[in-house]
Amino acid sequence: MPKTTSDAHILVNMTYVSRATSDVDAKELGEILQEAQDNNAANGITGMLIFHNNYFLQTIEGPRAQINRLLYALMADKRHHDVQLLEARELKYREWPKWLMSYTSPSEAAAAIHIKYSTTVEFNPYLLSAESARGLMIELSSQSGEATV
Amino acid sequence: MPKTTSDAHILVNMTYVSRATSDVDAKELGEILQEAQDNNAANGITGMLIFHNNYFLQTIEGPRAQINRLLYALMADKRHHDVQLLEARELKYREWPKWLMSYTSPSEAAAAIHIKYSTTVEFNPYLLSAESARGLMIELSSQSGEATV
Amino acid sequence: MPKTTSDAHILVNMTYVSRATSDVDAKELGEILQEAQDNNAANGITGMLIFHNNYFLQTIEGPRAQINRLLYALMADKRHHDVQLLEARELKYREWPKWLMSYTSPSEAAAAIHIKYSTTVEFNPYLLSAESARGLMIELSSQSGEATV
Amino acid sequence: MPKTTSDAHILVNMTYVSRATSDVDAKELGEILQEAQDNNAANGITGMLIFHNNYFLQTIEGPRAQINRLLYALMADKRHHDVQLLEARELKYREWPKWLMSYTSPSEAAAAIHIKYSTTVEFNPYLLSAESARGLMIELSSQSGEATV
Amino acid sequence: MPKTTSDAHILVNMTYVSRATSDVDAKELGEILQEAQDNNAANGITGMLIFHNNYFLQTIEGPRAQINRLLYALMADKRHHDVQLLEARELKYREWPKWLMSYTSPSEAAAAIHIKYSTTVEFNPYLLSAESARGLMIELSSQSGEATV
Amino acid sequence: MPKTTSDAHILVNMTYVSRATSDVDAKELGEILQEAQDNNAANGITGMLIFHNNYFLQTIEGPRAQINRLLYALMADKRHHDVQLLEARELKYREWPKWLMSYTSPSEAAAAIHIKYSTTVEFNPYLLSAESARGLMIELSSQSGEATV
Amino acid sequence: MPKTTSDAHILVNMTYVSRATSDVDAKELGEILQEAQDNNAANGITGMLIFHNNYFLQTIEGPRAQINRLLYALMADKRHHDVQLLEARELKYREWPKWLMSYTSPSEAAAAIHIKYSTTVEFNPYLLSAESARGLMIELSSQSGEATV
Amino acid sequence: MPKTTSDAHILVNMTYVSRATSDVDAKELGEILQEAQDNNAANGITGMLIFHNNYFLQTIEGPRAQINRLLYALMADKRHHDVQLLEARELKYREWPKWLMSYTSPSEAAAAIHIKYSTTVEFNPYLLSAESARGLMIELSSQSGEATV
Amino acid sequence: MPKTTSDAHILVNMTYVSRATSDVDAKELGEILQEAQDNNAANGITGMLIFHNNYFLQTIEGPRAQINRLLYALMADKRHHDVQLLEARELKYREWPKWLMSYTSPSEAAAAIHIKYSTTVEFNPYLLSAESARGLMIELSSQSGEATV
Amino acid sequence: MPKTTSDAHILVNMTYVSRATSDVDAKELGEILQEAQDNNAANGITGMLIFHNNYFLQTIEGPRAQINRLLYALMADKRHHDVQLLEARELKYREWPKWLMSYTSPSEAAAAIHIKYSTTVEFNPYLLSAESARGLMIELSSQSGEATV
Repeated sequence: MPKTTSDAHILVNMTYVSRATSDVDAKELGEILQEAQDNNAANGITGMLIFHNNYFLQTIEGPRAQINRLLYALMADKRHHDVQLLEARELKYREWPKWLMSYTSPSEAAAAIHIKYSTTVEFNPYLLSAESARGLMIELSSQSGEATV
Repeated sequence: MPKTTSDAHILVNMTYVSRATSDVDAKELGEILQEAQDNNAANGITGMLIFHNNYFLQTIEGPRAQINRLLYALMADKRHHDVQLLEARELKYREWPKWLMSYTSPSEAAAAIHIKYSTTVEFNPYLLSAESARGLMIELSSQSGEATV
Repeated sequence: MPKTTSDAHILVNMTYVSRATSDVDAKELGEILQEAQDNNAANGITGMLIFHNNYFLQTIEGPRAQINRLLYALMADKRHHDVQLLEARELKYREWPKWLMSYTSPSEAAAAIHIKYSTTVEFNPYLLSAESARGLMIELSSQSGEATV
Repeated sequence: MPKTTSDAHILVNMTYVSRATSDVDAKELGEILQEAQDNNAANGITGMLIFHNNYFLQTIEGPRAQINRLLYALMADKRHHDVQLLEARELKYREWPKWLMSYTSPSEAAAAIHIKYSTTVEFNPYLLSAESARGLMIELSSQSGEATV
Repeated sequence: MPKTTSDAHILVNMTYVSRATSDVDAKELGEILQEAQDNNAANGITGMLIFHNNYFLQTIEGPRAQINRLLYALMADKRHHDVQLLEARELKYREWPKWLMSYTSPSEAAAAIHIKYSTTVEFNPYLLSAESARGLMIELSSQSGEATV
Repeated sequence: MPKTTSDAHILVNMTYVSRATSDVDAKELGEILQEAQDNNAANGITGMLIFHNNYFLQTIEGPRAQINRLLYALMADKRHHDVQLLEARELKYREWPKWLMSYTSPSEAAAAIHIKYSTTVEFNPYLLSAESARGLMIELSSQSGEATV
Repeated sequence: MPKTTSDAHILVNMTYVSRATSDVDAKELGEILQEAQDNNAANGITGMLIFHNNYFLQTIEGPRAQINRLLYALMADKRHHDVQLLEARELKYREWPKWLMSYTSPSEAAAAIHIKYSTTVEFNPYLLSAESARGLMIELSSQSGEATV
Repeated sequence: MPKTTSDAHILVNMTYVSRATSDVDAKELGEILQEAQDNNAANGITGMLIFHNNYFLQTIEGPRAQINRLLYALMADKRHHDVQLLEARELKYREWPKWLMSYTSPSEAAAAIHIKYSTTVEFNPYLLSAESARGLMIELSSQSGEATV
Repeated sequence: MPKTTSDAHILVNMTYVSRATSDVDAKELGEILQEAQDNNAANGITGMLIFHNNYFLQTIEGPRAQINRLLYALMADKRHHDVQLLEARELKYREWPKWLMSYTSPSEAAAAIHIKYSTTVEFNPYLLSAESARGLMIELSSQSGEATV
Repeated sequence: MPKTTSDAHILVNMTYVSRATSDVDAKELGEILQEAQDNNAANGITGMLIFHNNYFLQTIEGPRAQINRLLYALMADKRHHDVQLLEARELKYREWPKWLMSYTSPSEAAAAIHIKYSTTVEFNPYLLSAESARGLMIELSSQSGEATV
């Protein structure tokens, strides 16, 4: 029997929101993202991130044990706070097999997508249900492609 | 935990019909619409309106508390009367994320859409079921685009 | 509350077959159709008619009370006899919002549609189930467009 | 091949409402019912009848040709008028294989069943949809058994 | 054709929450309920009411026009305020054909039902979704029967 | 009531396999097919035939009584033997409204379709389930069109 | 690999109607049944039989090859004629794992079951659809148990 | 992170048939079963076994890696031969959480269950589909309880 | 508009596993549970707990913000470690409206439930999928009632 | 009745993973494949193979008896070891009617497909569920076509 990474059969995702502790500019965000991608690539973690108005809305996908280790790290990370998990569930396959990062631009198209899934005009992901958060991320990514910092 | 607008998690729509108290011409209708859009934009309310034969048929969408405040205002507004709610229900996402206003033109295509969802030849939204009203609005908007006053 | 035509909320269809009392030629059929359309337009009635081999196969749609008045008239009309209702049911929306009249031409395409929904080679709508009659009308109308007398 | 009654393969029902031309007392109703049952038994027709407030609400079931012959007779019968068909559809099997006749008693249980399927407190079957009429008949028959005149 | 109450074909319900303007004791509540039932019985309106902690949670059912007239009256009634509609939808049949009034008792069973459908321990119907409100009312009524004032 | 062909309301199909009694060459097959089509055209029978390796796989569609008469004839026909019925069922509409006859060519595409629905490399329709036989016929006919002898 | 009866993987049923060539009395029917059961027991064939008014309505179940051999025999059997197959289909499991034979008694209960699935009052299985025939057999067997000659 | 048995997340079953190499009497069967249960208990394997006419029909359930190790052992075991796998699939939960062993008794009830899922009268599990094998095992176990050697 | 607890509209659950840092005896477990229940009762949190072999398997239910605050506390609590979230999802209603605590007894019935949802004989909740964990908790609670420490 | 290959009615697939016993280069792999295809073509076996990092992931399809003979051979073949069956199930039709062999290239597109169905970055088919293995094979084959050695 081949040696396997234990706990590696179960693929899960987690979707959470949080707020940057202080105002984050493009350079800092770029560093955060680079660091995250380096760590995640080694652990089989992919996902999708929206950063807007100092809010993070993120989905991470990977083996259950690794995703839980990342959850520990996220909750201890001082650069953001008020982590609130919207959903965690098992997957048949990854919905975000490529790592995407999206600044929502102030364009009218992006605004129409925001309002479609939100009760409020101003972006506030703490008000989203898990289903609305997912709809928003999918529609934004299909509209804006893979924007980079 | 971030401060949130209370009651802002639940997204609802309401569809109602009413009749203009007196004959409304294009200029008056334009003023009514402008006023409505200014108020609604601030409260996260979007929707769809058909005005024809002095009847209003309208769907409004937004946070439940705001939509109910607007319902109070609609029922007190002297410019129309006989407000009759056809339906109010919770939404996963807005069906009318852009605000549309449609004069149904006297074209043959619009007439065929009217008769498809109506029992009577003459437009009378008080005779529509909620489902027929919704079918009518969707088909009219996909056919006529976003007509303006 | 606006005055409404009583009974006008419920939209129904009826599908029936009948036979012309005597041989009907194109001129007579044209007169029958013209008369029907004049009456029906005023009462919010639309539908679909196939006339072939002196048989009528017809679907009429409209407000329930009007459709029933028309049923009384059809059963008393001496120009055809043996009216046999195949189906009457409530509708969410009209399936024939435009009034269509179709002579089934002797083309090969029409013959293949006839045989698809019939047990017999010769057209005889008394042998059709309601579902077969509906399939036949839909496929014929999508193939032949809106033929006129 | 055995000789078969032509047109006898298709089983249908019809549900209609009508009003007695003049006030009908129990004796007259009994005669009407006896006459109907004698005729129907010979033609393979079964069904369910509610008579209340001088309104008839009735479902008849049988071979399509026979049911249509009965429809001709019903529309010509002077003892009631304003026949309005609610529904006619094909059946896999009869829903009323025994002939039932039900006076709705003034009991409280029957009143609760009436109001469950009606918009109005007073019994008026012209206001019922086909589905409500069917629900009303089924629930009344299961509650009151097979009442006779 | 019989004379019918116009608009009486469409059966709807509405579910709303509100708060008593001042503290309501049992005697005042009894008077409010008696008055409501007298008016509603004449208009074909039935429903279900929960009154607890000075909150009202109520579902009303009846013909669409009558239910809308009642909505006008409710919004103008000074004895309660902050009317918030949770849902309005068309019905195949009434879910509350008998008029029920329920004081939720301080028993442990009722508390377990409250918490099952609520996020908060204390009863606050403004926090309920339409579906949770309906689940709460159904389970409470099946557990407590038809309590009267 | 119009005179109808008795038993003509029910449309059925039958799918069977058989083997030619002796080797059949193209000329003989052409004569068999010509004879079959002449008889069937008069009786409202259509269908699909595959002849390969001296096996017949055939679906016939038409009025139930006629199809059964043809079954008697097929079982008595000395030119093939071992008739084995795979399926007989009622139809809403004919799946083979045009009469098709298909020689499966030795092309690679046809071989891939054969193997897709078969357990064995060599064509043997006695090994097919009814569903596999139907899949094979549909895919072959959509690929090869209407080949003639 | 164990030796298997070839063709024995596929379980099918067939339902057919036929008429006795001459009047059959109880003794003759008993002999027919005894002979059938002796043959069928050896071939893994079970089923259900109704004999009434000189009509046979029968479902047989077993391996496809055996059922087809029995079909050949049935069509050649001079004791009945006009064999008409209503349906043949593959089974996941037998619906009649015990062999049943039912005389429909002249009781009122059996009559109500007959009329439920039939258009005509008199028993004539040639007028039944496959689905009605099956409903009739199931309901009769659950009501009358396993009657023997 | 706790140490886990690798590969232990995925629960599967396998159903196979085989034949005893020589006639097996009750004592030998008892020894085979005892040995199997001792090994399986340690590896988290449960299941169901039918032994009849020297055929084995067995379902085993457990962690995927263990079940595959058992498959290697089964194929090498000289006491039976012609192992034929009918099905292997992933499970949400075990269907046989208790280890059952069933001799099918020669009672009439067991015979009716056998014939229900089989084409042949004589028990031969090589002729069963996976679905029939499962139906047979479930029905036999619910009828006969947990028989032991 | 009444004052509402912000974020209190959304009801969620979380299911996680963890391991006690050191061996926990009944007295310590009792203290942990008492402390948890006191805190949770004030925050509208209910749930279900299994403690066995020094493993915790727990589902908690309540308002999303409160559940997330509890998640922060759980991850910082030194009395257990290796917290691994199996699932977090939104609820229509609580599945555990009463707080349950269950020691799985060493009875045979409990063992059969464990093995039904587990790959391994020894209890190890890190090996469970979210669905298996939920099945196990539901079946254990329905079997053992509300055991207390 | 025609002679049939016994056991040839049931079409199944099997999906398994294994590891090459020693490093396999392109030449050796080519020989293995050629040998396999020669044997399989004669036995009606088709399928799909992925070979990567010395792991095999393969689906084979064909008659149940032949597939089981191949399973015996696979388990005895010394060129690979640790055969682990992921799934075996009955088919309506083959999903791989052409024999495909795919080297997964180190391209970025193939990597994204791998990660979509895997928990780990490195390819290890022992960690796949049956459903993920199937998704991976389908998506890889539709992307890369039929690569040959």
